[in-house]
Amino acid sequence: MQTNGVSITWLGHATFKITSPSGKVVLIDPWVNNPVCPAEQKTIDKVDLMLVSHGHFDHVADAVSIAKATKPTVAAMVELAGWLQSKGVENTIGFNKGGTINVDGIKVSMTHAIHSGSTEDGTYGGEPVGFVIEFENGFKLYHAGDTCAFSDMAIIGELYQPDVALLPIGDFYGTPAALSDALHSLGLQDVEVVAIKPGQTI
Amino acid sequence: MQTNGVSITWLGHATFKITSPSGKVVLIDPWVNNPVCPAEQKTIDKVDLMLVSHGHFDHVADAVSIAKATKPTVAAMVELAGWLQSKGVENTIGFNKGGTINVDGIKVSMTHAIHSGSTEDGTYGGEPVGFVIEFENGFKLYHAGDTCAFSDMAIIGELYQPDVALLPIGDFYGTPAALSDALHSLGLQDVEVVAIKPGQTI
Amino acid sequence: MQTNGVSITWLGHATFKITSPSGKVVLIDPWVNNPVCPAEQKTIDKVDLMLVSHGHFDHVADAVSIAKATKPTVAAMVELAGWLQSKGVENTIGFNKGGTINVDGIKVSMTHAIHSGSTEDGTYGGEPVGFVIEFENGFKLYHAGDTCAFSDMAIIGELYQPDVALLPIGDFYGTPAALSDALHSLGLQDVEVVAIKPGQTI
Repeated sequence: MQTNGVSITWLGHATFKITSPSGKVVLIDPWVNNPVCPAEQKTIDKVDLMLVSHGHFDHVADAVSIAKATKPTVAAMVELAGWLQSKGVENTIGFNKGGTINVDGIKVSMTHAIHSGSTEDGTYGGEPVGFVIEFENGFKLYHAGDTCAFSDMAIIGELYQPDVALLPIGDFYGTPAALSDALHSLGLQDVEVVAIKPGQTI
Repeated sequence: MQTNGVSITWLGHATFKITSPSGKVVLIDPWVNNPVCPAEQKTIDKVDLMLVSHGHFDHVADAVSIAKATKPTVAAMVELAGWLQSKGVENTIGFNKGGTINVDGIKVSMTHAIHSGSTEDGTYGGEPVGFVIEFENGFKLYHAGDTCAFSDMAIIGELYQPDVALLPIGDFYGTPAALSDALHSLGLQDVEVVAIKPGQTI
Repeated sequence: MQTNGVSITWLGHATFKITSPSGKVVLIDPWVNNPVCPAEQKTIDKVDLMLVSHGHFDHVADAVSIAKATKPTVAAMVELAGWLQSKGVENTIGFNKGGTINVDGIKVSMTHAIHSGSTEDGTYGGEPVGFVIEFENGFKLYHAGDTCAFSDMAIIGELYQPDVALLPIGDFYGTPAALSDALHSLGLQDVEVVAIKPGQTI
């Protein structure tokens, strides 16, 4: 897997800590206290940009505490950004699907996802989303958020052409090996499936 | 129409009572007090599995009372399951689009639908959904919930290959006869359209 | 641009005032106090039909005041219609995606859009929508609401065949000239792109 100077660490569930070529830290869907995150990686000292895909507990649980400690820019769907702000998170950016923001040279586009999006309080947190992150050197990473399969993922591919995709699999593609098999049966032998482990960096 | 031992009764609107080959009763979108449900079918004595597609009154109106009386497993979008639980419904399962649960040998997959999903209280009840039910003998039934037409219904067909689909029609395909004509014009002569009547069982 | 007796005035942002061949005034997403609406066009004396695509401030800001002053029929997603009614708006029609209403000879179909839909109060206002309006003479106009690109816009084209589309562009197609270039590169030379100015009527 060529990541072109971008360091991608999986912390379990949908939580990824990504270090950009210039050393910026992007934290996505912060739930470091999930059962599989290695103990020594639960403490996050530095975050420059935090992205949250939707308001469910398993994607947002540690967002407020880490944001208060590390003071990143925090970008999310407009309703969820407002909710985070209401919890004392500063420097929030609320935007919507199809929109792109530029945070100190890192571009983030918000993509469609099909799921639900309440907050921990039971209020409406806007629609669930995914993100395409374009790093300073042009390397592009797609984090799908929580979603079922949908054909307009093809639009995401066409518009953004991500180099790597972080995908939630399970009920249908099952294991990474099954996803790889499915891709091969579609003639997509050049797509590399990486079965990353919690705490592992690629 | 071959239903392979599965008995499907339409109780009007989106309400269906389905008996599985092993005698389990599945009740979908319980609103038996709708104007067209025959009086003698308004009383439901036994439900093993209740599915609710979204929180609108015409899909959930009798869910709480029937669930309290018959004690089924009740499965719905996670936010709606939480709402039902808050009304005193027990044995709820909250899941999300693309997910599959197995309730005593009956598999239920939650599918996408395009509509809105508030609860009777005006709160956010998650996104509206459809269901694909796979009965003990492999027979598969798709209940689309409330939805407009969307092309990713093709994904539902591809992934689950349902044997029968319960579809809300009206504004575009109009009558069952018009739907049948539309299917024929697309060369889909082998799709049988059944214009079921309230209270009728197929 | 042939508009067949339909007069289309852009008032900035997503706000359009449209006069039908028979003289009826349709006002969409009323936010006349937006920064670019010409001062002399901020006062709306007559509205027969008001349509609101979703509950965000920049689409609904002047809906209540204009509705109270001009007493139109006000049509929106069912949750948003309920919210408007709760603010004292009369003659609301709540419907849902895929549905069509007929208001004194003008047909309005509600279409899918991909965005979020809270109200100004932070409550759930249903899903965001677009509209296809068929005027008395058969001329059809599509107002996409706020949405990212999605492939099922093709279904809207196929089912309704609109004559003109009011589209939110920006992040991807950018300027009207870029949209025109993109259409040309797809071989769609017969699609005319009109770069309308705030306050301008076509």
